[in-house]
Order: sequence, then C-alpha cells, then structure tokens
Amino acid sequence: MDDPDHRAHWLRLALTEGVGPQTARELLARFGLPGDVLAAGFPALQKCVPEKLALALCSEIEPAMQAQVDATLEWATQPGNHLLTLADAVYPQSLLTIPDPPPLLYAKGRVELLSHPALAIVGSRNATVQGMQNAEQFARTLSQSGLTVVSGLALGIDAAAHLGASAADPRSGSTIAVTGTGLDLVYPGRHRALAHRIAEEGCLLSEYPLGTPAIASNFPRRNRLISGLSLGVLVVEAALQSGSLITARSALEQGREVFSIPGSIHSPLSKGCHRLIREGAKLVESANDILEELRWYRPARTPDAHAPAAGGPAGNEAAFAHAASARVLHAAGHDPASVDQLAERSELAVPEVQAALLALELEGRIERLPDGRYQKLMQ
Amino acid sequence: MDDPDHRAHWLRLALTEGVGPQTARELLARFGLPGDVLAAGFPALQKCVPEKLALALCSEIEPAMQAQVDATLEWATQPGNHLLTLADAVYPQSLLTIPDPPPLLYAKGRVELLSHPALAIVGSRNATVQGMQNAEQFARTLSQSGLTVVSGLALGIDAAAHLGASAADPRSGSTIAVTGTGLDLVYPGRHRALAHRIAEEGCLLSEYPLGTPAIASNFPRRNRLISGLSLGVLVVEAALQSGSLITARSALEQGREVFSIPGSIHSPLSKGCHRLIREGAKLVESANDILEELRWYRPARTPDAHAPAAGGPAGNEAAFAHAASARVLHAAGHDPASVDQLAERSELAVPEVQAALLALELEGRIERLPDGRYQKLMQ
Repeated sequence: MDDPDHRAHWLRLALTEGVGPQTARELLARFGLPGDVLAAGFPALQKCVPEKLALALCSEIEPAMQAQVDATLEWATQPGNHLLTLADAVYPQSLLTIPDPPPLLYAKGRVELLSHPALAIVGSRNATVQGMQNAEQFARTLSQSGLTVVSGLALGIDAAAHLGASAADPRSGSTIAVTGTGLDLVYPGRHRALAHRIAEEGCLLSEYPLGTPAIASNFPRRNRLISGLSLGVLVVEAALQSGSLITARSALEQGREVFSIPGSIHSPLSKGCHRLIREGAKLVESANDILEELRWYRPARTPDAHAPAAGGPAGNEAAFAHAASARVLHAAGHDPASVDQLAERSELAVPEVQAALLALELEGRIERLPDGRYQKLMQ
Repeated sequence: MDDPDHRAHWLRLALTEGVGPQTARELLARFGLPGDVLAAGFPALQKCVPEKLALALCSEIEPAMQAQVDATLEWATQPGNHLLTLADAVYPQSLLTIPDPPPLLYAKGRVELLSHPALAIVGSRNATVQGMQNAEQFARTLSQSGLTVVSGLALGIDAAAHLGASAADPRSGSTIAVTGTGLDLVYPGRHRALAHRIAEEGCLLSEYPLGTPAIASNFPRRNRLISGLSLGVLVVEAALQSGSLITARSALEQGREVFSIPGSIHSPLSKGCHRLIREGAKLVESANDILEELRWYRPARTPDAHAPAAGGPAGNEAAFAHAASARVLHAAGHDPASVDQLAERSELAVPEVQAALLALELEGRIERLPDGRYQKLMQ
C-alpha cells in the first residue's frame, strides 16, 4: 500500500466527480483494484456507470487533478498524516460493515485508534453548561474504561466529549474527531487548538479531499462515519430537528446502539433526547449504564496492556481479520449464501462476516450477487 | 340496596377478621349475597374457609361489631356519605376488572365520578417545587380534558395533582382521593382542608372501615385501587424504592398504562421515573402526550392566561440586582446546580450569586433543594 502509484490510483478514483462510496464499491467489485478500474476502458466502464463518468475514468488525467493527487501524496508523507484505502489493513474494520464506506480516508494522528472499540458522543452545538459537563464526564469514564470516544469536532457537546476523553489518563481510549472538511482545514476555526491536540493524542479523520471547505450538506453525510466507527451513539442534548438525530438514525440503520440522556421536560435541548427514548433509544443516567448495556467489562487499561503508539496497526488485528476471511470463504461453499447463513456456518458475528466479505470481494475471491447473496469465485 | 339489613350483612362480612377481598369474592361466588353467606351454616362454610372464620361467620354477631355496623349505617345516612357494595350499580366498574376488588367501599362526595374515565397521578411526598408544579399542570390539563385525576391525598405530588384537577373549571373531570385510613379520619392531618375540598368538589374513597388509623401496611395495598380506578398511572417524581413504583407495578399487573416524566440525571427524584421508562413506561413531556396515547381526543379548555405580577425593583441598584438575577437564572439551566457552579457559570462572585438566589427563591423562580443545590422553576 505504500506504492505511490497504487495510492495515486485510489486518489484519482476517489477524486473523480461522480464517484461516491456506492459507485466506488460497485466499480471495485467489478474490476478489482482502482488501477484495474482506470485501465478497464470505455466499453467496459460504460456498462456500469453513466457515459460521462466512464469517459472521465478512462481519459488522460487532467492537470488540475494530477496536481491535487501530487499534493495529497506529498501531504501524506508528513509525519502523522495517513491516507487509508479500503484495501489497507488499517482501514477501520467497523466501517466495512456500513453500506457506504468511503473508498479513501484521510487521517491525522494515531490511526491505530481507528481499530479500537469506540462509542460516539454527539449533541447540540448550543448545549447548556450542564450538558457539556455531562458529555465531558461520560466521555472521561468511557475513555478510562478503554473505549475510544468519537465525535464531530463541533462546538458544544462534541468539543466537551473530545476534551473529556483526552483528559483521561494517557493509557485511555482517547478520542477520534470525524470532520466534515478536508483535514488541512479546521472548522469551526475556534477549535484549531482542540484539533491540534486531537491530532497529537487522538486521531482526526475525514473522507473529504484536502481543501474541502465547510459545506452544509457534507456534515450530515459525515455523521454516518461517526456512528459507523462506533458500537453505539450517545446523544447528550439535542433539539428536535437536529444533526444529532441524524446521527442516531444512521446508528440504527447501521445496527448500532443508541443511548440518550433524559432531562427536564421544560428544556428544549432535551426534546430530541426524549424523542429518541420514545423511539427505543436506551435511557442512560451514567456511563456505567452504557458499559453494562454493551457488556463492556474491561476495566481502565493497565500500563503493560498498552500498545506502543509508534507500533502501527496491531498485528493481532490483521491476523484476526485474515482468519475471519478464511473461515467465511470456507463457509461459502459453492452455492450462493446470505450473510446470515455465512454467519451461522462460520460461527462469526454478522459484522465480522460483512467485513470479511468486503475484503474477499476486493480481493476478487467472492462475488456479490444482485440479490445480495454471495458466491465464491473459483481461481 | 337501601335496605339497611342488606347493607348490615355486607358490613358484617367485610368487617369480619380474616375476610379480605379475596375471601369475600370466593364466599360470594359460592353462596350468593352476604346474607346467604351468613346463613350458610358451619358445615358448608368450613368447606371453603378456615374453621375459626367459618365459626365467626355463622355465630351470633358480637356486640362490638353490631355497634360498628350501626355506627357505619348511621354515617352513611349523612349527606355526601356512601357505602358501595360490590353489588351496587355505582360500584366503580373499573375495580371489577382487578383481581381483588374490595367487597365494600366507603365514599364521600360525588360518587358518580367513580364511573368516569380517570388517570392516576402519583409521586414523591418529598417532591421538588418543580415536580409539584408539573403535577399540578398535568392534572389541570387532564381534568380540563374530562379525565378524573386519581391520587392518594399524600403530601407532595399527590396534593399537587388533586389541587390541579380541582382548580380546573367545574365542568372538568375533577379528582378522587383514595385514602389509606377510614374516611372519618384525615391523614396526613395537614390535609384536612384539602380533604374537605375534595369531598365537596370531587370524591374521597376508602376500603378501610371507619376509625381505621394510618397503618403503614395499608398504604401499599391502597395503591392497587388508585391504579385500578384509572386508565393509566402517571409517575411525576419518584425515588428508587418508593410507593409510587408500587403503584406503577400494580398498574402493570392490572393491564393499565404507565407514564413517567423524565428529569435531570442528577436528581434523585428522577431515578424512579427513569427506571420505569427503562422498564417500558411511556416517557411523557406533556399532558397531551398522555391524551394522545390514550386516544383521548376531547380538547382541553383554554386556561386563562396568567396575569404577570405587577411592579418591580427600581433604581440602579435594583437594576444591577435584576441583571445579576437574570445571569444566575440563565446559568441555572434545567438541572440542579450548586452555588459554586452558578458562580463559575455566571462569572459573578459567590455573595452576588447568593443574593440573587435569595431574591429568585422569594420570587418563586428558583428552588433550594434539600442537598443545598438550586433548581430553576419553569413558570
């Protein structure tokens, strides 16, 4: 994955207008790696994407895009900066279980945190002081218990959650900020120092190309990554009609848990939380309620259990993913099989099966059929 | 049912030691009316009740019990007083659906209310002022919508619910108090005026014989009548391990709805409410939430707008004090907060905060909790 050409192909694919996560997934499933997509030629491409997009993918790269690719590759050489492709071992496994994982992620900081069990904490930008204190306290306890706290770097609840998680002792779960802009920009501007701190102690993550400014429509889309990276989403304070409720909905669609903190019936910022509880979110009064619900019994980390930050992705996790792929491949047999069937046969959890299937699909060893089932490909 | 002999039989049956609602129901099912039970004779009675009880039922009535029967029949001749037997048409139909309806009920006031659709409102005796205001407001709206509000005449939430329901206009649903003592006694003593008012505008109800003092074990049993008379039970504020949770459990056993008002996760009196919500009670933010859930569409009558208090502080000093109050009030948010927290949030000195708090407390805009923290009251 350190081959710059290889990464240039991923970048070109991801940067091409009209290639969203869904299209990228389809193209990769059909042709293999991005280099194969770009070399497939117009007739083949035209069969699965609109003509204009097929043309863009098989033409000579335009100078402006070449410059952007070069600048991004240069950015990625700087200490702490990372480009993560869907095919990378350090690409967050949790995102492989959502329907639309970004083909390319930009990260700044401790990328190994992306494979940690995580919990998202979100809420209003116009939070109350009590709400921010709650966010900070919940984040601190969850982080001390070894969970990484994911949020969106916004004012209010988000910031309090990041601060609470990074204020926990250095062996804690730390924090990940998923931003809605390119990672070379900070939004909101007054969170420059916070973003810097997270890049040091935790991790900043974005699916948006460098230079992408704050565009309103990008933020709700970004929310699916906040929930996707997490075992569950805690909503601390939220008005009706707020972005936090979008994140909660993403979480439900992705099969994640939703937790909600109740409050006064006279507080407008509790109304969103109360609606979520009515709709089935778990009412929580303390971080321990969340840990119990997740059956997360791991106490705060001990020094010897702490993986060194400089070590890169843990070998264990990669080995585990590999073993899971082998089991799923074995379980697939020769007939089409559904995810549930594969989970039952392989005795793996559904998200693990989904992650393995995506990896196998990218490796060209298994095929996703139009009806959603999977078919092993004979080599 | 106005035949005194007939009623004397019901009274004797109900007053006999060892005849609870369950035994009474079995005896009546077997023999017919109470006169038939008393005439059944020892051999027949012995087949379904213990020997001692069979003997008591078929013996000559003892003078002390005869005196009690006579006094009760005399009490029932006074205006507003009623004895209701299981066989009476005015016996509350709703209680016939619970497993253990009392054979005899003592009522004082508008007995026709006992056949109205009703909702119970219960909660802590040590309620916060905000909790009592909530109880009163919910009760007023429910009563204005035509529902009768049932509660237990206790201090705190119960009293606020009765007051809210009886403060509604005279065509409203009014209120029923189910007491744990004989109806010739009032417990707690300081609710004498309230009990008198309910006997005028609403209805007092008890299953306990005249003269029964406040006995701790009678109150939890009484709770089954509060829920039994109602379509559902609203718990406004409740500690863990409280009588309100017993009423909620009765409601569930009787197939009634349970509604619960959420609150700050830092308030001990919300913990019982939160537990109920976790266990499946409906979280409600307003009386309309209850009406919708019950599909009770009769609209609430428009309440008179509250006239704002006239006058106010004047001069610079007063203006400054006013500004400090406003800042403290703003800083208070919706959760309980300590003086130090309020000083930090409002950026005022502690003495200024204390002065503002005192003024706000006197104006009824903030409440001092037993633990020394302060809670903003919603007007």
